[in-house]
Amino acid sequence: MDRVAVIGASMTEFGQRDAWVRELLAEAGAACLDEAGVDASELEHLYVSNMASGEFEGQTGVPNALAHDLGALGAYTQRVDQTSASGGAGVYAAWQSVASGASDLTMLVGGEKMTHRTTAEATDVIASLTHPVEYKHGVTLPSFAGMTARRYLEKYDAPRESLASVAVKNHANGVDNPHAQFRKEVDEETVLGSPIVADPLRLYDFCPITDGSAALLFCPESVAAEYTDDYTVIAGIGGATDTHVVHERDDPTVMGGVVDAAEIAYEMSGLTAADVDVAELHDMFTILEVLQLEDLGFFEKGEGWKAADEGITARDGDLPVNTSGGLKSKGHPLGASGVAQVYEIHRQLTDNAGERQVSADVGLACNVGGFDNCVTTTILEAAE
Amino acid sequence: MDRVAVIGASMTEFGQRDAWVRELLAEAGAACLDEAGVDASELEHLYVSNMASGEFEGQTGVPNALAHDLGALGAYTQRVDQTSASGGAGVYAAWQSVASGASDLTMLVGGEKMTHRTTAEATDVIASLTHPVEYKHGVTLPSFAGMTARRYLEKYDAPRESLASVAVKNHANGVDNPHAQFRKEVDEETVLGSPIVADPLRLYDFCPITDGSAALLFCPESVAAEYTDDYTVIAGIGGATDTHVVHERDDPTVMGGVVDAAEIAYEMSGLTAADVDVAELHDMFTILEVLQLEDLGFFEKGEGWKAADEGITARDGDLPVNTSGGLKSKGHPLGASGVAQVYEIHRQLTDNAGERQVSADVGLACNVGGFDNCVTTTILEAAE
Repeated sequence: MDRVAVIGASMTEFGQRDAWVRELLAEAGAACLDEAGVDASELEHLYVSNMASGEFEGQTGVPNALAHDLGALGAYTQRVDQTSASGGAGVYAAWQSVASGASDLTMLVGGEKMTHRTTAEATDVIASLTHPVEYKHGVTLPSFAGMTARRYLEKYDAPRESLASVAVKNHANGVDNPHAQFRKEVDEETVLGSPIVADPLRLYDFCPITDGSAALLFCPESVAAEYTDDYTVIAGIGGATDTHVVHERDDPTVMGGVVDAAEIAYEMSGLTAADVDVAELHDMFTILEVLQLEDLGFFEKGEGWKAADEGITARDGDLPVNTSGGLKSKGHPLGASGVAQVYEIHRQLTDNAGERQVSADVGLACNVGGFDNCVTTTILEAAE
Repeated sequence: MDRVAVIGASMTEFGQRDAWVRELLAEAGAACLDEAGVDASELEHLYVSNMASGEFEGQTGVPNALAHDLGALGAYTQRVDQTSASGGAGVYAAWQSVASGASDLTMLVGGEKMTHRTTAEATDVIASLTHPVEYKHGVTLPSFAGMTARRYLEKYDAPRESLASVAVKNHANGVDNPHAQFRKEVDEETVLGSPIVADPLRLYDFCPITDGSAALLFCPESVAAEYTDDYTVIAGIGGATDTHVVHERDDPTVMGGVVDAAEIAYEMSGLTAADVDVAELHDMFTILEVLQLEDLGFFEKGEGWKAADEGITARDGDLPVNTSGGLKSKGHPLGASGVAQVYEIHRQLTDNAGERQVSADVGLACNVGGFDNCVTTTILEAAE
């Protein structure tokens, strides 16, 4: 079967932006088309990954607006929402549109505009994805993260400092990402001395609230070289859910959605964790990067905390993780994040990652919706 | 290529329901699985068509909740939003999931809970899909319908009564649909004497605000017979956009999105309008059924108004349209409507439409988002 190629990628500056989501989407979309030398009128399908433009801005129908703004009149459009994994779900939708033969040229643009709302308001919109009983009891995603971190540290006798080292690493990477929200290093003392948010996690264990957009362009592998030599191929992709009610899980330190989605993606690709050279993981909270390292098969259960601590996942380590700076330093505009993960992997595999460049032929992106409520995993290979 | 089959279909009662959207979705989803004799744990992908659960109810993450409620733990889930065409877009997404090989068993459940909000509030949520400039000037979809109807009646010298005859026909059909919101006949005098909403259109030219859900189950055609003899096959499917700004259209009486989506679906199926035996059209407003009859190729431009007037689209006519009662009488829970259209076609093609049964081997469903902002068209065939 003809595989699906990525022939263009772009992202806007992430951070506090003075623009509505449709403007951010248009900015990323136009840049992506420009990079690939494709005119918007050639697009057959146009997907928008976005969780909550209606709740954040009172604006819906954003895919149709984007088709208008780009000049993609006629292209089929649709919004993909899978909460904080909307971007990864968008990659899956775009992949399906090409793999099914429905479209030979599909663009995905993910984006979210959040910073005009207070942190409390934005957190409340995000918390609306939880089970109503959890929500009524005041549970938010940060509180789940705090409880999970405490359990993990106790169960595996891991030092608190190991979580801080994830933040330190990702902030160091973000310095070299011109699109990142925070381009400054932080040290362990700063992380451990920052205000408590959900004990034992502190402010610097959490990603920020962010505005931004990212875009990817897809076509069948058989015609990718007609557009560019700098393309990558989706070798494997999969998605899966975990329990919607978090307390129903046997072991809260296992992300079952991550395990299941990875199994599908690995099987489809014929690759294993050992083949992966670089990864973008969903470090919405530092503890999540540790759990994903384990549940994706990179580390044994209970050993993932050593990764950043020992430099294994640093840019010059054996398995560079979140070379982009991750959600932690790059920022987390919900609908854009999963798209921006694949943007970073695409840049790495095509040797276009600038100061962040590592040596990699196979990359993996893991995007998490809610607290493992739904997960998508994408494995990319460099063009041969 | 293996085509995609529909092996199960269900819908809840449409109307004013004392249940939240996740309960409605679970009701339709469970009934659909039950009909096909499939256990929820077998589902590989689960799509939810829904425009605005966040805006209407303050609840997001509904696909994950549905996976939980049905016991479909592990199935990949995602929400599909294409405003009032979310249901049709969901059919397209579900089709792609099977056609791409990503899933061998996909369920789509569409639904919306709206009646707990006032008509003004619900209309405002829907109007948020329009261009901001249109929105700021107070344009809503009903007002577009009024202007378009006036232009059509003048341009083609069509009698006002011909629009009323669409409402009369669809209400007559709805009487025999046990799931319909309004199961009562109306006469021309009632329609023409009802309160003006957007001149020349009156209350009975408009569909109601509705709660409800509908579901469909999909698998590859090659294995459909293992589930049931009563399956249908998606012969063609396509989607397209029109201008996002309605006043930019050359001729407001032409639905360009309908024309383009139909062209894709007809080409894929190898069928033409002449092959279609029964159709479900998006009669959110009576004028829209007339325009779609023309832009789908059933009637010459300017002749569509004669269809209901002369009985051609009646249940005993040459081309029965909206045997379900249509959005007009069955109701229009945004995310459910496009799914319920395919439900009706599936029932007709499998000879399970009860009192509404017509003789049909090929059926077509046309679902419209916004005011032709995005359209999906699906053509189904009875199993051979």
